[in-house]
Amino acid sequence: MTRRLALVGLGPGDPDLLTAQAARVLNEVDHLLVADKTAQHPGTADLIAMREEICRRHVRGPWHLVAVPDPERDRDDPTDYAGAVRDWHEARAIAFEATLLEHPGDAAILVWGDPSLYDSAIRLADRIEERGVVDVEVEVVPGLSSVQLLAARHRLVLNAVGGPITITTGRRLLEDATAGDNLVVMLDGSLTCRRLPERAAWNVWWGANLGSADEVVVAGRLDRVVEEIAARRAEARAARGWVMDTYLLRRA
Amino acid sequence: MTRRLALVGLGPGDPDLLTAQAARVLNEVDHLLVADKTAQHPGTADLIAMREEICRRHVRGPWHLVAVPDPERDRDDPTDYAGAVRDWHEARAIAFEATLLEHPGDAAILVWGDPSLYDSAIRLADRIEERGVVDVEVEVVPGLSSVQLLAARHRLVLNAVGGPITITTGRRLLEDATAGDNLVVMLDGSLTCRRLPERAAWNVWWGANLGSADEVVVAGRLDRVVEEIAARRAEARAARGWVMDTYLLRRA
Repeated sequence: MTRRLALVGLGPGDPDLLTAQAARVLNEVDHLLVADKTAQHPGTADLIAMREEICRRHVRGPWHLVAVPDPERDRDDPTDYAGAVRDWHEARAIAFEATLLEHPGDAAILVWGDPSLYDSAIRLADRIEERGVVDVEVEVVPGLSSVQLLAARHRLVLNAVGGPITITTGRRLLEDATAGDNLVVMLDGSLTCRRLPERAAWNVWWGANLGSADEVVVAGRLDRVVEEIAARRAEARAARGWVMDTYLLRRA
Repeated sequence: MTRRLALVGLGPGDPDLLTAQAARVLNEVDHLLVADKTAQHPGTADLIAMREEICRRHVRGPWHLVAVPDPERDRDDPTDYAGAVRDWHEARAIAFEATLLEHPGDAAILVWGDPSLYDSAIRLADRIEERGVVDVEVEVVPGLSSVQLLAARHRLVLNAVGGPITITTGRRLLEDATAGDNLVVMLDGSLTCRRLPERAAWNVWWGANLGSADEVVVAGRLDRVVEEIAARRAEARAARGWVMDTYLLRRA
């Protein structure tokens, strides 16, 4: 029997930022699945608590949050990033498949932000479908991205008038910044903008844990504020055991 | 007295895609302002009707939709695009300012999609604030972008694993496609991808009027589907008098 598998974008964390559609789908399915990284990162338990908070606000009646232990990802081999990601996707597909077999009925996978932006849920669902062990009908429910909340908090249009935007990762920033002059940086665990040449030539708008109670934002000329950003980022990480941040860099 | 001026992202059109925050703000303010382009484009009256539909769904009690006539924008001078946009912003600021003076109290400007992405509402509010004629406290309420709905409909992650995304406009596409191999194209009134060299080297995921009852999507290798896209786009425009479309181009 075909089962519904909805990939539901929850937005950046604030329950107020869910769409009506996302709230409806959470109410329609039998199980709410969340990737559980607490084995590797014990501090992330509050990421599960934040999802409970979202359910408390939007789901009528009891809900069933199923934590799916996230497999370890090999981050140590810089020569085969794509291969490591592929292996991790496969292990993850098997873990979610086992959970679906254990919990019959319709399910939603709860996704931070938007499934379309640097998120693995769509590839996970593709792989579950390809493997064919569980018969699923996949649907994607978009959610606000932290990038949009960053822009809203800074009252920022991401593009210059008529100009392009490059969305990239910390890993690629130094290369992409040679071509683009307006970049959104995601997945940057080491604040790579500190290593940009000509830091006085860039402005930065940064935000961490956007949509949560302890969100923090900083903006200014990169050379002037980058150490403040580094300090605020370290504080945020120390307080919760994790930090999620993103920033816009624009040539002055 | 300082008045609240909220720039509320409504998402791409479907009332189901509003966030809880956007719905709340629509209920809190006294007036809902919409840019009215019907003088220039009579077919866009249904864009106002779509906003009424959103209010009907989300606003409790009576609401007050105020249409602000949009000034004419000079699109004929390709040598001074930025200047034409600037003049248009100024005329628009004056028009909204006059509306705010006429309608005391808190107001929201209703924005399609997300105010942070190729939208003029933030610059409009900045200019109203700078002019200082009306004393406003501006806030930005993010909304889903049509790009996110495009991705959801095609079950698409916008980035390749770890790779960048360029968001650009039709005007810049031919230039930006020489550097990037993964591009989201917005504001493309003339389907510029038809003029790309090596069309067999690209895949396209296209969508028009996403989030409305007559949305249409097409995907495939660019050389194989581009004429179908052109035909569906022309049909959509003929049916309503306007079309809003966006697409992702990715090198195969």
